[in-house]
Amino acid sequence: MAQIIDSEVFLAFSTYATIVILKMMFMSFLTAYFRFTRKAFANDEDVRTAKTPEEKKKMLRVNEDVERVRRCHLNDLENIIPFVIIGLLYTLTGPELSSAVLHFRLFVGSRFVHTVAYVLALPQPSRGLSWLVGMVVTLCMAYQVLTVTLRL
Amino acid sequence: MAQIIDSEVFLAFSTYATIVILKMMFMSFLTAYFRFTRKAFANDEDVRTAKTPEEKKKMLRVNEDVERVRRCHLNDLENIIPFVIIGLLYTLTGPELSSAVLHFRLFVGSRFVHTVAYVLALPQPSRGLSWLVGMVVTLCMAYQVLTVTLRL
Amino acid sequence: MAQIIDSEVFLAFSTYATIVILKMMFMSFLTAYFRFTRKAFANDEDVRTAKTPEEKKKMLRVNEDVERVRRCHLNDLENIIPFVIIGLLYTLTGPELSSAVLHFRLFVGSRFVHTVAYVLALPQPSRGLSWLVGMVVTLCMAYQVLTVTLRL
Repeated sequence: MAQIIDSEVFLAFSTYATIVILKMMFMSFLTAYFRFTRKAFANDEDVRTAKTPEEKKKMLRVNEDVERVRRCHLNDLENIIPFVIIGLLYTLTGPELSSAVLHFRLFVGSRFVHTVAYVLALPQPSRGLSWLVGMVVTLCMAYQVLTVTLRL
Repeated sequence: MAQIIDSEVFLAFSTYATIVILKMMFMSFLTAYFRFTRKAFANDEDVRTAKTPEEKKKMLRVNEDVERVRRCHLNDLENIIPFVIIGLLYTLTGPELSSAVLHFRLFVGSRFVHTVAYVLALPQPSRGLSWLVGMVVTLCMAYQVLTVTLRL
Repeated sequence: MAQIIDSEVFLAFSTYATIVILKMMFMSFLTAYFRFTRKAFANDEDVRTAKTPEEKKKMLRVNEDVERVRRCHLNDLENIIPFVIIGLLYTLTGPELSSAVLHFRLFVGSRFVHTVAYVLALPQPSRGLSWLVGMVVTLCMAYQVLTVTLRL
């Protein structure tokens, strides 16, 4: 197996894919953090610490901060996973290292900007633009995969 | 790396996986389109163009057309990503080209029918059946992966 | 291609990844089961069997059992897909078989416990702990991928 990960492009892909997935997993911890600090839970068994039924009912609520992080997390799933899958296929087509690294860096950078813009509710179009940059990078790589697979 | 993508089955897998992921990414644009045409947004910073607080509040709403596209997008995540992962492992078990291409085409076709049936709200069981076909294809491939990995 | 899946670690990874994705796909069937038994649907075209408009409206509702399964399914997407992607990259770094299998088993086991704890609403911290075990396994593998890709 060792020879597969020896390619420079594959090493770069593995690094950036791992980093951006770690960023996505971080959203789970952020959701948990907001659920505890805002006392806003979704499941009955999560509010067993409540002493009275009224307090319990109060903790089973929808909080806008929690929902914001959850929307950001879902947006990550919708964008980062296509990037990783298309990026893996793109890596296997044997692209130039410099070109590949440019794609990976642009995407990973755009998703970090997207998360900061989303969680801090920065004025638009910061979130919209960072989302678009990531989209365009993935579409670019998909185009190059199809060019290789359909022509050969 | 070049030799990996040289296998006919891998070329076919890369093509179909890329196409079906592009279809999934298209749902993001469709959601944005419905959000703008229906004026139904989820974030405070997205409705800064509103002139009055009343207008702003009116634009921060849940719209059934937007929700329908979002449900379709989530269903894509739940079905297309398992297909791509199981499909990659299946491809690496070295199946017959004709059999593999049949699996890939059936799945991709079923997801396009599913999206049309969902977005246009076509009468059931069009959506249910197309969902089931995709499911069965992925289950078939998973069975073949386990046959190879557990017996060897 | 055949030589790729010949590695013992890759065979183990393929088996455990397939099993945990099958578990994730099972949530779709469980959602469908709860929607039918609880008569709680999300789409207009799914309640065409209703005879009166009142009955129809009654079936287009949110049911807590359905929502619980859907939250569990989304949590699977957020945790199992990162595991599979990071796990694939980790497998390609050529780890020891015994160490790799330990990671895979711990993760897959933790997700089965998580699903049972979530669907049956078992008292906390059963669900929280099983979620954390899965998270830690994936973080461990991500750390090992970065160690290999950044040092070489």
